[in-house]
Amino acid sequence: MTDELTFPPVESVLAELAEYVAIPSVSRSADLDTMREAAGWVAGQLAFAGGRVVETDGFPLVRADWLNAPGAPTILVYGHYDVQPTGGLDEWCSNPFELIVDGDVVRGRGVTDDKGPVVIVLKLAQAFMEQRGGLPLNVKFLIEGEEEIGSPNLPAYVRAHAAELAADLVISADGAQWRPSEPSLSTASKGLVSLDIVTSGAKSDLHSGRFGGTVANPVHALSTILASLHDEQGRIAVDGYYEGVDDITDDRRAEIAAVDFDDADYCAALGVSELHGEAGLTTLERLWERPTLEITGVTGGGKYSVIPHTATGHIVARLVGRQDPDAIVAAIERHVHAVRVPGIDVTVRVDQARVPAYRIDPGHPAIRAATAALNHVYPGDDVLLAVIAGTLPATTLFEQTIGAKTLFFSFSTADENLHAPNEFLRIRRIHEGLRAWEHLWKLLAAGPHALERNDFLLEAAR
Amino acid sequence: MTDELTFPPVESVLAELAEYVAIPSVSRSADLDTMREAAGWVAGQLAFAGGRVVETDGFPLVRADWLNAPGAPTILVYGHYDVQPTGGLDEWCSNPFELIVDGDVVRGRGVTDDKGPVVIVLKLAQAFMEQRGGLPLNVKFLIEGEEEIGSPNLPAYVRAHAAELAADLVISADGAQWRPSEPSLSTASKGLVSLDIVTSGAKSDLHSGRFGGTVANPVHALSTILASLHDEQGRIAVDGYYEGVDDITDDRRAEIAAVDFDDADYCAALGVSELHGEAGLTTLERLWERPTLEITGVTGGGKYSVIPHTATGHIVARLVGRQDPDAIVAAIERHVHAVRVPGIDVTVRVDQARVPAYRIDPGHPAIRAATAALNHVYPGDDVLLAVIAGTLPATTLFEQTIGAKTLFFSFSTADENLHAPNEFLRIRRIHEGLRAWEHLWKLLAAGPHALERNDFLLEAAR
Repeated sequence: MTDELTFPPVESVLAELAEYVAIPSVSRSADLDTMREAAGWVAGQLAFAGGRVVETDGFPLVRADWLNAPGAPTILVYGHYDVQPTGGLDEWCSNPFELIVDGDVVRGRGVTDDKGPVVIVLKLAQAFMEQRGGLPLNVKFLIEGEEEIGSPNLPAYVRAHAAELAADLVISADGAQWRPSEPSLSTASKGLVSLDIVTSGAKSDLHSGRFGGTVANPVHALSTILASLHDEQGRIAVDGYYEGVDDITDDRRAEIAAVDFDDADYCAALGVSELHGEAGLTTLERLWERPTLEITGVTGGGKYSVIPHTATGHIVARLVGRQDPDAIVAAIERHVHAVRVPGIDVTVRVDQARVPAYRIDPGHPAIRAATAALNHVYPGDDVLLAVIAGTLPATTLFEQTIGAKTLFFSFSTADENLHAPNEFLRIRRIHEGLRAWEHLWKLLAAGPHALERNDFLLEAAR
Repeated sequence: MTDELTFPPVESVLAELAEYVAIPSVSRSADLDTMREAAGWVAGQLAFAGGRVVETDGFPLVRADWLNAPGAPTILVYGHYDVQPTGGLDEWCSNPFELIVDGDVVRGRGVTDDKGPVVIVLKLAQAFMEQRGGLPLNVKFLIEGEEEIGSPNLPAYVRAHAAELAADLVISADGAQWRPSEPSLSTASKGLVSLDIVTSGAKSDLHSGRFGGTVANPVHALSTILASLHDEQGRIAVDGYYEGVDDITDDRRAEIAAVDFDDADYCAALGVSELHGEAGLTTLERLWERPTLEITGVTGGGKYSVIPHTATGHIVARLVGRQDPDAIVAAIERHVHAVRVPGIDVTVRVDQARVPAYRIDPGHPAIRAATAALNHVYPGDDVLLAVIAGTLPATTLFEQTIGAKTLFFSFSTADENLHAPNEFLRIRRIHEGLRAWEHLWKLLAAGPHALERNDFLLEAAR
């Protein structure tokens, strides 16, 4: 296309991403000043649209609006500037907060979740502004700073500003593509609840010899609880856990079976000798259609020789279908408290976020427009309709408050060590992402004027 | 008694103990220089007996000999200058390496295990030298720096210097008295083996959503293994674990039943609502006569939302009777490897120390002499014969190499947070200990000359 935008050289995009990655905006541990610095960086990039840092009861969010395309549809671009903790630095091959170019990828905490994907949208908007003098449609930006801790303050903000945020469609720059081998779009994401299970025994650690055999060991009690969460067939053994989970239909099984997926390749990529999970289901069926319950951490005592007085396990439940987060929390609590060990107190501390599963119809016009945009950038590749087995809490919120569905349109890929050491982003995704977003915006703008909210794409698709 | 020694005021003893506690001689983590500094402090206190720091392949030990009592028996005083790690500093109410006087006790890492008890012997010997011009019997000192890590280099040293270390009796300044309510002597201590169990899955941590339900979770696998170590009746479920453990005889049960011990008081002291352990046995029977297997630590992942790629549990086995440490290690390894989880590798890393259980006959003359010394300091209190449920690896070594039994003669008390935060020592124990050691030495010296090794006390006791 001769009317395509010219994008800045990748080196210059990476130089700016490096500045952004250098701000350690770890929402689980950072101080407010650090988070404000990261928010300020994003707001600066959005100066053309009045980018500003908006305080909340937690970490600030970033807002901007460019609304000078009268009659064109309005989209709300969502992303986040916060990142996951680094975990042990000894597991990183470089400083997590220094962007490192390593062959075809760049490494650093947040490069793929979600700083890189957000920078792509920022650079796209700037290119439109510089080369076309404006954007092809009305764009509102909302970049939050608490996604990795479950967005505790986003709901209050969005509810209080529903009119200001009104849009025909939300496009999320968060939510990775499934894998690097073909373009994909996601039509669902899993819900989430998470909690700590804490076992406590004596009032202080006890010498393992001088008190051994006389009192129950909190680590043993915790191990018993954690081991009881699944049965030997890999099924979650918490009573009531599968309520609201529909059996996978034959049609859906056939669709999933048609996806080119090889267990052996997947094993090799992860470095495991064998896969494991709910018996009787394929790997993709388990990943896309079934709820999970994973232990994400455990800690108690140390290497010195005591009976620890306390031990803690953290678990994360990912939900599907109509599973009710509150009911799941209650079911887990009942299960945990049913394990009784003499002299051991068991406490459950539930994290704030309670996110139901989310779904957008595969036939939704936003999915069709996005498919066309991806087809333009990846000619000849079929666009795969996948599921984000991760959780994007904002989706349900937007649906409930501003009545708009969310299109996941990210150029992150799910194998890029999200939430893990050595997070990376494929460098080629930057220009691919810029071009795809450009076409998506153009396709959305080209539709007939949206007289009724949410209907413009239906019309465009006719 | 008019010929009793005069001891320095407690403030002056505490001032010196404070210097000693300030040296952070944590054998699990300290550098060689720190350990040499602690050894040098002890050697300085033993200058009157040629105190010297002796290098080993690990941390140095301290040796000294005062052998100017011809015809008198020879004892070997054993203790250690190393201490346990502090664990989390937030659980301490003061700096662990600063001696704090808190009412009737002093606090600090090592005050009761084993720096305080060793200082008592040092001050006793110095008082004899200053006030009597010599010791009443021949005394060899061996204060090691690796007790808390299982004395890995002590055996080689003792074997190579067996003749130089020859003695009629070993007296250990390590090995706490059982409880504060009455004086006690210990006639046995438990053996020990310890090991890490490591479970490993994928090559790196995996996002708990994007990979959840597809691979086995190493924390779940570890929990299953740890939970399987005991059955629901509190019995160790490792096949072969009880080999070499005799049933408790009716006589022994009666002896133990006669000990004034109250489960409710014990619960209250530890801060637990209920006791727990091997079914069908009393608390003291479990503590004194039965082997244990405690999980002393567990770690895997963190609070961020991943399937950790690895998890580690540390367990400590305490042995009794004729349990063979090597056989116990093999039994645990077999048990652990029998738990198979698809895609999870399980590794067992066995710590170096393999210590069998130790026992001295309750009728042994050293026990009788020590009983008399305690009776002198605690008139009217019966001396209780107890068991050290902890492990003192040097005892078996001394028996095997220099043919001498070990008398535990410590003024530590088992409730003083050994190996735990806020370790403390009752201040009154310092002068009680000084006086008791004085009388013990005098009683041993007063016996008829020992013409045959180990026999002098039998004669003295006649």
